[in-house]
Amino acid sequence: MSKLWGGRFAKKTDSLVHQFNASIGFDVRLVDEDITGSIAWAQGLVGAGVLMAAEAETIIAGLERVRAEFADGSFTLAADDEDVHTAVERRLTEIVGAVGGKLHTGRSRNDQVATDFRLWVMQACDEMQAWLGDLQGALIASAEANLHLPMPGYTHLQHAQPITWGHWALSHFWPLARDRKRFMQAQAGASVLPLGAAALAGTAFPVDRAFLAEALGFTAVSPNSLDAVSDRDFAADFLYAAAMTGLHLSRLSEQLILFSSREFGFVRLDDGYSTGSSLMPQKKNPDTLELTRGKSGRLIGNLMGLLATLKGLPSTYDKDLQEDKEPLFDAFDTLGLALPVMAGLIRTLHLRPERMAAQLEPSLLATDLADYLVKKGMPFRQAHGAIGQVVQLAEEKGVDLTAVSLTELQEISKLFGEDVTAVFDMTNALANRAAVGGTAPSPLKTQLQKAKNQLGKQENIGALR
Amino acid sequence: MSKLWGGRFAKKTDSLVHQFNASIGFDVRLVDEDITGSIAWAQGLVGAGVLMAAEAETIIAGLERVRAEFADGSFTLAADDEDVHTAVERRLTEIVGAVGGKLHTGRSRNDQVATDFRLWVMQACDEMQAWLGDLQGALIASAEANLHLPMPGYTHLQHAQPITWGHWALSHFWPLARDRKRFMQAQAGASVLPLGAAALAGTAFPVDRAFLAEALGFTAVSPNSLDAVSDRDFAADFLYAAAMTGLHLSRLSEQLILFSSREFGFVRLDDGYSTGSSLMPQKKNPDTLELTRGKSGRLIGNLMGLLATLKGLPSTYDKDLQEDKEPLFDAFDTLGLALPVMAGLIRTLHLRPERMAAQLEPSLLATDLADYLVKKGMPFRQAHGAIGQVVQLAEEKGVDLTAVSLTELQEISKLFGEDVTAVFDMTNALANRAAVGGTAPSPLKTQLQKAKNQLGKQENIGALR
Amino acid sequence: MSKLWGGRFAKKTDSLVHQFNASIGFDVRLVDEDITGSIAWAQGLVGAGVLMAAEAETIIAGLERVRAEFADGSFTLAADDEDVHTAVERRLTEIVGAVGGKLHTGRSRNDQVATDFRLWVMQACDEMQAWLGDLQGALIASAEANLHLPMPGYTHLQHAQPITWGHWALSHFWPLARDRKRFMQAQAGASVLPLGAAALAGTAFPVDRAFLAEALGFTAVSPNSLDAVSDRDFAADFLYAAAMTGLHLSRLSEQLILFSSREFGFVRLDDGYSTGSSLMPQKKNPDTLELTRGKSGRLIGNLMGLLATLKGLPSTYDKDLQEDKEPLFDAFDTLGLALPVMAGLIRTLHLRPERMAAQLEPSLLATDLADYLVKKGMPFRQAHGAIGQVVQLAEEKGVDLTAVSLTELQEISKLFGEDVTAVFDMTNALANRAAVGGTAPSPLKTQLQKAKNQLGKQENIGALR
Amino acid sequence: MSKLWGGRFAKKTDSLVHQFNASIGFDVRLVDEDITGSIAWAQGLVGAGVLMAAEAETIIAGLERVRAEFADGSFTLAADDEDVHTAVERRLTEIVGAVGGKLHTGRSRNDQVATDFRLWVMQACDEMQAWLGDLQGALIASAEANLHLPMPGYTHLQHAQPITWGHWALSHFWPLARDRKRFMQAQAGASVLPLGAAALAGTAFPVDRAFLAEALGFTAVSPNSLDAVSDRDFAADFLYAAAMTGLHLSRLSEQLILFSSREFGFVRLDDGYSTGSSLMPQKKNPDTLELTRGKSGRLIGNLMGLLATLKGLPSTYDKDLQEDKEPLFDAFDTLGLALPVMAGLIRTLHLRPERMAAQLEPSLLATDLADYLVKKGMPFRQAHGAIGQVVQLAEEKGVDLTAVSLTELQEISKLFGEDVTAVFDMTNALANRAAVGGTAPSPLKTQLQKAKNQLGKQENIGALR
Repeated sequence: MSKLWGGRFAKKTDSLVHQFNASIGFDVRLVDEDITGSIAWAQGLVGAGVLMAAEAETIIAGLERVRAEFADGSFTLAADDEDVHTAVERRLTEIVGAVGGKLHTGRSRNDQVATDFRLWVMQACDEMQAWLGDLQGALIASAEANLHLPMPGYTHLQHAQPITWGHWALSHFWPLARDRKRFMQAQAGASVLPLGAAALAGTAFPVDRAFLAEALGFTAVSPNSLDAVSDRDFAADFLYAAAMTGLHLSRLSEQLILFSSREFGFVRLDDGYSTGSSLMPQKKNPDTLELTRGKSGRLIGNLMGLLATLKGLPSTYDKDLQEDKEPLFDAFDTLGLALPVMAGLIRTLHLRPERMAAQLEPSLLATDLADYLVKKGMPFRQAHGAIGQVVQLAEEKGVDLTAVSLTELQEISKLFGEDVTAVFDMTNALANRAAVGGTAPSPLKTQLQKAKNQLGKQENIGALR
Repeated sequence: MSKLWGGRFAKKTDSLVHQFNASIGFDVRLVDEDITGSIAWAQGLVGAGVLMAAEAETIIAGLERVRAEFADGSFTLAADDEDVHTAVERRLTEIVGAVGGKLHTGRSRNDQVATDFRLWVMQACDEMQAWLGDLQGALIASAEANLHLPMPGYTHLQHAQPITWGHWALSHFWPLARDRKRFMQAQAGASVLPLGAAALAGTAFPVDRAFLAEALGFTAVSPNSLDAVSDRDFAADFLYAAAMTGLHLSRLSEQLILFSSREFGFVRLDDGYSTGSSLMPQKKNPDTLELTRGKSGRLIGNLMGLLATLKGLPSTYDKDLQEDKEPLFDAFDTLGLALPVMAGLIRTLHLRPERMAAQLEPSLLATDLADYLVKKGMPFRQAHGAIGQVVQLAEEKGVDLTAVSLTELQEISKLFGEDVTAVFDMTNALANRAAVGGTAPSPLKTQLQKAKNQLGKQENIGALR
Repeated sequence: MSKLWGGRFAKKTDSLVHQFNASIGFDVRLVDEDITGSIAWAQGLVGAGVLMAAEAETIIAGLERVRAEFADGSFTLAADDEDVHTAVERRLTEIVGAVGGKLHTGRSRNDQVATDFRLWVMQACDEMQAWLGDLQGALIASAEANLHLPMPGYTHLQHAQPITWGHWALSHFWPLARDRKRFMQAQAGASVLPLGAAALAGTAFPVDRAFLAEALGFTAVSPNSLDAVSDRDFAADFLYAAAMTGLHLSRLSEQLILFSSREFGFVRLDDGYSTGSSLMPQKKNPDTLELTRGKSGRLIGNLMGLLATLKGLPSTYDKDLQEDKEPLFDAFDTLGLALPVMAGLIRTLHLRPERMAAQLEPSLLATDLADYLVKKGMPFRQAHGAIGQVVQLAEEKGVDLTAVSLTELQEISKLFGEDVTAVFDMTNALANRAAVGGTAPSPLKTQLQKAKNQLGKQENIGALR
Repeated sequence: MSKLWGGRFAKKTDSLVHQFNASIGFDVRLVDEDITGSIAWAQGLVGAGVLMAAEAETIIAGLERVRAEFADGSFTLAADDEDVHTAVERRLTEIVGAVGGKLHTGRSRNDQVATDFRLWVMQACDEMQAWLGDLQGALIASAEANLHLPMPGYTHLQHAQPITWGHWALSHFWPLARDRKRFMQAQAGASVLPLGAAALAGTAFPVDRAFLAEALGFTAVSPNSLDAVSDRDFAADFLYAAAMTGLHLSRLSEQLILFSSREFGFVRLDDGYSTGSSLMPQKKNPDTLELTRGKSGRLIGNLMGLLATLKGLPSTYDKDLQEDKEPLFDAFDTLGLALPVMAGLIRTLHLRPERMAAQLEPSLLATDLADYLVKKGMPFRQAHGAIGQVVQLAEEKGVDLTAVSLTELQEISKLFGEDVTAVFDMTNALANRAAVGGTAPSPLKTQLQKAKNQLGKQENIGALR
């Protein structure tokens, strides 16, 4: 069989051109979706009176055989198979004969490829949910195991206030929850049936599109055939969700790279998640974290590439749209490794509480010192200034805040009393942040439970779908 | 009043550094949100027993006066006002005296700025809904006025099949509906209260965050204080929604630019939406459409910039985050002009049915000719090939498809009969695309009604909010 | 042989982690460069007294055998070959025994991979020159064959002034000349030797880096070892040059897509460069042009991805840098097809002068009409206004500019005389644009010669290198 | 005076449209370039016989008065001044009367704005050179003052090998040298005269374009008028150079942020370059560094935006091109603050050698230990493995490498002898990296001198220009 469109052409396509135009190198990945879509279409053609039931049965059996040949590797691509649709129809016709040529009635590759690709995205979003949930579970486990373990909290990478490991670990749970929402939205966007739009104006045969949608698991039917063959918003939505996920993984990676440096030393990566140097025998490098951080750039690049391509389109279906698949496949494969690897890394991470404790120094409590004055009646703004002076004094003397004497403190404010020493108790300081979302034991327990509930619920939803 | 944080510093900030760090040049735009947030915080501090009711009243009255001064232009920025928060607190303290210094108790600029910015985004999403709805309304009106007006439909910018103006206009309605959904999602993401997270670890005062959320119109309270000061997903969501909107406007612009060229000539822009040339007196340029198309690139750039910035962040709050606002303000302003201008342009657009009709030539019906053979029993794939030969024959003879004689047709297939002439009726051809979403009168009417219903429903939702 | 760095590790790398970290899937493409670099390094180690000449000979012979095995496909990757460097050294050691273990003395993968990659980029830039030159040649040929063929010129996609095909074709020559310059600059940036920088601090053995540079064809030696292992500017330069090339191809494609539409009809693509529709038998689609336009987005995405990755790097060598190669390989492969395909398409393009002539209507000469008044003494600004009135009058009457009578013209300005008819001569109009770079015959001939000279010179430079 | 193109229009531009189209809000920044360009054009028109010398004198005097009015702030924009060109010509005509209307003869805003913008870019590149040179000077000074100060060197943010501060500081000099090269290339790309291209086809008056180029300081004349009004490569080149500069600043910032953390503590920022917290009195935040890092994202976004806009253009001049200026102005202003601020920060940076020394621990010399075995005859690959075992042994015992006894070492390799203690001398270790570009004193001095020479040479070139 020649190309699907060769009838009117006097000359053969130039061979470089064929190589340039061919998408079979990557869209072969849609073979299952293509066959599934074609089976539904065959059934639809029966309903429309185009195919007889027996013809449809022959075609469907043929398609299932093509599927099996693909699955067991016995399918051989021909030189002329420019895309997966051509390859499947070519093989189908070899198997079932001329009746195979009836399958494409009332359909165009424009609506066919959009259907296949949407089916793939719908499935890919499910897998993303599972991978994200897996990492969320690892973070919950790490948080739970060390919920109240104190460590310094940072803003601007400077010591800010004491927090706990559990609080920190959960702070990376919630961004992933937002990522899951974005993939759900991408999935909802994909779940609109284009099949039946034909080339652009709608199919000329009375195929029941609602039936097709139900048969294929779509939740809606595209209301406008021009839009149906042209819309790739769902692909951009997927890439955007992937870029945001990558960004969250990059931030988590960055923090763990810092924490595993000799200077911080808060964590030690398991050997299974580190690598060495070809030159320096002592090195234990957080390569997986760095790669994850680096691949975040690639995910952004995939999104930008598609947006730039889509922006330049003039009409309904233009061949530019063939560029829509590779970035999604790449994003899917990238996260399909990065997420499980990160989950394993978190699960095997060794914490070093003694190194965290060594960094729990008094300046982390300067705010608590200001709050002490506030509780004695001083307006906060003034208290902030007063403690600023205390800090400066301690720095000039080269000592910790705790080493500033009460006399010296009282020279700065008469409100300081003997009870000021109680401020420098880390446990107290943590317990003070007791409002919802804070680092005190009580809100932390609530937060952990909320995270568990949400994860459980999402998993159940996933299971039901 | 000096800077909010000057206490511990021995030296003044270098003046270039001050200029570099200052955000007052753009965040002054958040003045209303800042004051609204501070009023809620003052009330929260009363609940927490930090402020007495009378103190809060004084502060709130002072804040309202600051708001009024901003509104009437009597507020004067001081050299030291590095950001809107500093400016407001500075002026508040000038008005109410030392009690003003109590307002910042238990709060940090980290949660304060996140609160202000989220309030702004929530509001901005409402305005986007209105602007998008306005353009959707213009498209509906244009579709309704010319619902069944035939015109050529294009794929690959080549003549494909006949469609109608109404079908075409509505094909630009649905992408905007998806944009509205994305802005709703961005709004939902923004509607999570960070206030009470303080610098990062949670406020040390028993402020009721649920009360704050309700007072400020947030639908949820951030469950993790570290995430609360760090999360800018909502800003990225907004920019992504804006970039997608820009992309849809760009595609619409591109088509109208083509349609208003002399060669196509399907539409004529109203004089109010065209401009001329400084050199060439005859020119009537679609500048507004070209600018809209060009600004789509800018919106993509805004998204890219923020993603690259967010990707590189290591901790909870880092000053890099100050870069989050300008791209959103720019995207908002850009679409705040582009959308109303496009709506006006669509409303005043002059259609030229005679030019469309001139392009309704027989090759647009080649698919119908193949379908003719299919209906006579030929498998589609074979019919496609047969019509390919007909097309080639017509091209060789330099004539239209209609000029190929029945004898010649029958040499290609015996199935051709006298009734073939009925195929070349445009009205028939349009009426044949009768499946849901197609270009035939019946599905078009359904589609129009669906669009109207959806627009009405969204407007009502908007009105209720 | 195990990994190059396994000595200190207690546990094996997790298998997903191995898959995630491995670069052999793509960096195997650097096998030739890796072997070439290692041969030079072995020679350098002889000079440094680390290897005896006989040892080096053994190693070099072994490396050449590895190269041959790769070339003839007899090389088999092992499960543990995480990258091309490991694979080559593993195989080398299998061939030559323990002496192979001496090759990596004083070298790190950090400087090794940078050397390999730079060698690849230097070569890739040469191929880009050839591909770009080929397309430039096709444009010159097209311009020369139809140098003075008149066609309408457009601004804002509206008829502006008459130009010629030769002028138009050459307008796409010069952007490619700038692209070639950018690839030359990328090549110069790549041509700085990192080898000898070792991991980051410089090699501890007295290897002569100037010798290495000369042996490998680098024009300079990196002056700072930290920068040497960290610098990927040359990779960004390459991707930027590729993105700009893509952008120029996109603009050229866009114009040819327009020109090959039924409405314009200025050109017809050769059958070898068009494709058809699976549904619509009459379609002849400019797929190659659309794909080229679409792939321009992908090239921009590749650049953005690398920039985002590089932006987030903290130190000298971080594993994030492993993400540097795939976007360049992809950009190279993309342009390696797009450029030759476009050259072929231009060479086989059919022009349709009669369709161009049909669009050469009088409004294109409105500026000439204004110039007519200027030459009679009217200030241009006033003349522009006067012709504006003439245009409006013609539009109101629904006639061409030539159909406005002398009486009517004289009502607008007394300066109009009988000689105004000469203005409406297209040949005159073209001849009037006679300044350098203009569309008149004389500057066009000069331009064509300049283009030819430049192309010839660049080819010679290429040949000499 | 009304708009420059109003003659043929029946209706007024809609006011929102006017606001949308107007560029005066930002292109007013080109007023000097616009006037300079117009003066040259007036002189050119004299040469072409269009203006009499006296007319040109009047016009030029008028233009100089407009320039003065702008400079002293006495110029008032009118409601109708849609861009800087309109504003200048409007005011000129008010001053000189009708003769002002002759200035625009043979010129279009298309070539005019390209000329203005190129002049601006040429000048902006000069300023970039100065700012970059200033920062390079600061790095040289810092390097020279602490050329041999030992500090740990990192790869993967893990301790790798000892380096020196001078080596580190200079590693940030060379990327900036590459940035300067890129701005020189952008400048060369800008320095091609478009004036005389008119709207697109070339001016119809015999103006001497070589004279114009010389008068305005361009080094070449654009060879093709279509390309002249369309080409914005120079703008992309500028933005690319700016993005790369931002990327280098981001990496430098990231390292200094790390070095100024409590855990590293290698440097202390001067008070003038730090800021505090509104809540936490002890904080001293590296805000300027973080902002610089964050703004790097914005610079990438500016590039992305322009590339996406340019990619979508179909013809010669389209209004989309109006979007070319704002990103460049923004990039210029951003770097115009970030570069001087970074230079000041480097100049005032306090180093803390004792904190660096505290991190100079023996594992940094593991490679030297392997090299020790190599020098005793063991192949490197085997030596790497042996030292891996030593490292593992030390880790298991929880001791430093130096605490592994000779007996234990000899159990791993018989080649270890008493002289192994000499390996653990940091000074020796540094001195060993003596090849070109290494961290030993001798190549460091050479490198410093090379940097000084290059900086001096570039400054002189700058001075001569």
